[in-house]
Amino acid sequence: MSPLHAIVPAGGAGTRLWPLSRASHPKFLLDLTGAGRSLLQQTWDRLLPLTGPDRIHVVTGQRHAAAVTTQVPDAEVLAEPSPRDSMPAIGLAAAVIAAREPDAVVGSFAADHVIGEDELFQAAVREAVDVAATGKVVTIGLEPTFASTAFGYIEAAEPLAGMPTAREVARFVEKPDADTAAAYVATGAFSWNAGMFVTRADVLLGHLERLHPPLHDGLRTIADAWETSHRNEVLQEQWPRLTRIAIDHAVAEPVSLDGGVAVVPGRFTWTDLGDFASLADTTASDDAVWIDADGFVAARTTQTVSVVGIEDAVVAVTDDAVLVTTREHAQQVKAVPSAWHERGRDDLL
Amino acid sequence: MSPLHAIVPAGGAGTRLWPLSRASHPKFLLDLTGAGRSLLQQTWDRLLPLTGPDRIHVVTGQRHAAAVTTQVPDAEVLAEPSPRDSMPAIGLAAAVIAAREPDAVVGSFAADHVIGEDELFQAAVREAVDVAATGKVVTIGLEPTFASTAFGYIEAAEPLAGMPTAREVARFVEKPDADTAAAYVATGAFSWNAGMFVTRADVLLGHLERLHPPLHDGLRTIADAWETSHRNEVLQEQWPRLTRIAIDHAVAEPVSLDGGVAVVPGRFTWTDLGDFASLADTTASDDAVWIDADGFVAARTTQTVSVVGIEDAVVAVTDDAVLVTTREHAQQVKAVPSAWHERGRDDLL
Repeated sequence: MSPLHAIVPAGGAGTRLWPLSRASHPKFLLDLTGAGRSLLQQTWDRLLPLTGPDRIHVVTGQRHAAAVTTQVPDAEVLAEPSPRDSMPAIGLAAAVIAAREPDAVVGSFAADHVIGEDELFQAAVREAVDVAATGKVVTIGLEPTFASTAFGYIEAAEPLAGMPTAREVARFVEKPDADTAAAYVATGAFSWNAGMFVTRADVLLGHLERLHPPLHDGLRTIADAWETSHRNEVLQEQWPRLTRIAIDHAVAEPVSLDGGVAVVPGRFTWTDLGDFASLADTTASDDAVWIDADGFVAARTTQTVSVVGIEDAVVAVTDDAVLVTTREHAQQVKAVPSAWHERGRDDLL
Repeated sequence: MSPLHAIVPAGGAGTRLWPLSRASHPKFLLDLTGAGRSLLQQTWDRLLPLTGPDRIHVVTGQRHAAAVTTQVPDAEVLAEPSPRDSMPAIGLAAAVIAAREPDAVVGSFAADHVIGEDELFQAAVREAVDVAATGKVVTIGLEPTFASTAFGYIEAAEPLAGMPTAREVARFVEKPDADTAAAYVATGAFSWNAGMFVTRADVLLGHLERLHPPLHDGLRTIADAWETSHRNEVLQEQWPRLTRIAIDHAVAEPVSLDGGVAVVPGRFTWTDLGDFASLADTTASDDAVWIDADGFVAARTTQTVSVVGIEDAVVAVTDDAVLVTTREHAQQVKAVPSAWHERGRDDLL
């Protein structure tokens, strides 16, 4: 069996991490954790032992293609003309890979997630590749550390014969309310859906052909032209017609109902670094003076930060913006760039 | 009667307005209200119709003397070698003025207060000058707009015969607790002590001679040398020995017990601009994005400010510092420069 191809969708402005994350320089391009490598580069580092340098494919918007190439020069960069959600992005890469290597196994891994233990991640992916070789769509489910309402859940069924930890998937469920989330976690059978899928490219395309024929045909048409001089022409023509849909809804959920999906438990620590609360959990605050206060500071200028009388404060400082909120309101930060847009300050997006 | 001499003590770092107000560039030198004139310059403007340009005397620290001269070039600047509270500062100017003009009436008015209606202020001072000519020490008492615990209070007694609004002062009281403040305000007889005193210079020096002979003698010694080549030598020698005391405790309180103090009610709006709460009450917030939030922003850089989920937030931004607090905690801001000092960041003071 040849090594895994990793597909890395690199999209999303990360507006809940504004002003650190910007439309022009989104979360995956940033070294948000102070590791010395951007989230994209950390994703590359984590995948490299599984794939080698020639099998990592980053799907990103055209405006970010150059920055991606600068950060991960050995990656293949597939530039989307416009964002059309995860299924077209992953499907494009899968179709291009399948045209070159019909029996390829592909795995999709977001460019902006943070994972604590690379070895545990790699072990889970290796098992997922073994399971995927049997024809399953395989997801890596994260062991819940609390009853989060921010993620969808995966319910596991029976163990898969001959595999160390993989289980059948009973069903995928959407982000639950707090009570439902607590009930899920209490059963021990539910894991978080982090959008990590491993599958044979031909299996994925087969499901697409059956479930979403026009999307499948559009992707195949683009893939057929990919290595020709018509690539851009065909891409510009086909891309805007592709169904805008997430891989979860397009493939994982319907296929799971027919017993076609397996889950490998991921025992590594993980965060999607979705907002300042999760950034605060993951990284150290910058130095600040706290008087009758505590919280998290991310200062990208030489300005000092002082907080007086606010608990769980969040302060982010960049050259052009100061954001102040609290941990509790971290989700609402996404409204801020919209508000500046309404005031004509698109330079701040 | 010759016109009033105004004495303007210009001291205090304004640490509760840090980082806008700094030890090196304190509150009175700043245009905190966005008027286009610093608080010191606004004080000058307000006094000028009462004194003319040759009778305004600013007493300030040596490190600020040059900045004061730049801002109010026509003022006489008396530079204190070190801060020794308000009685030595005001007494020095009074002694220097008395040596030149024995029957002078002097009035002391802080350099960093904000007054709404200059005409009402000037009318009150004019009446105070008339009362002072009779030998009284006269204070201007501010009509309380709420039961503040941040100011001392003046209790008025009988009206003064022949004066439009002046009354005898029964007593001065220190900053009260909330219940006491409410009781004071309910009587209608109490006004805020804003530290504005008008008196004949010889009357003031007479009280000092009686109540604080060493302080009086030190001031007279300095005043005698003021117009000579020995000014600095004598100042350096005498100044450190002067009693460190406020004019309220040195003169106003004891003299009031003997019936020697009168109060003229000030019906103008007034604030000492002591903290961000009073700054917010006095001036418009800079533009900001507020999401589920409100409050006050003072941004001295081009950075935008956005606040999410905090009520009564206060955000101040300068080239080297971002301060975040709430209106309720405005008083605690004074702890911030100390905290930076402890970290060796005296550049931030």
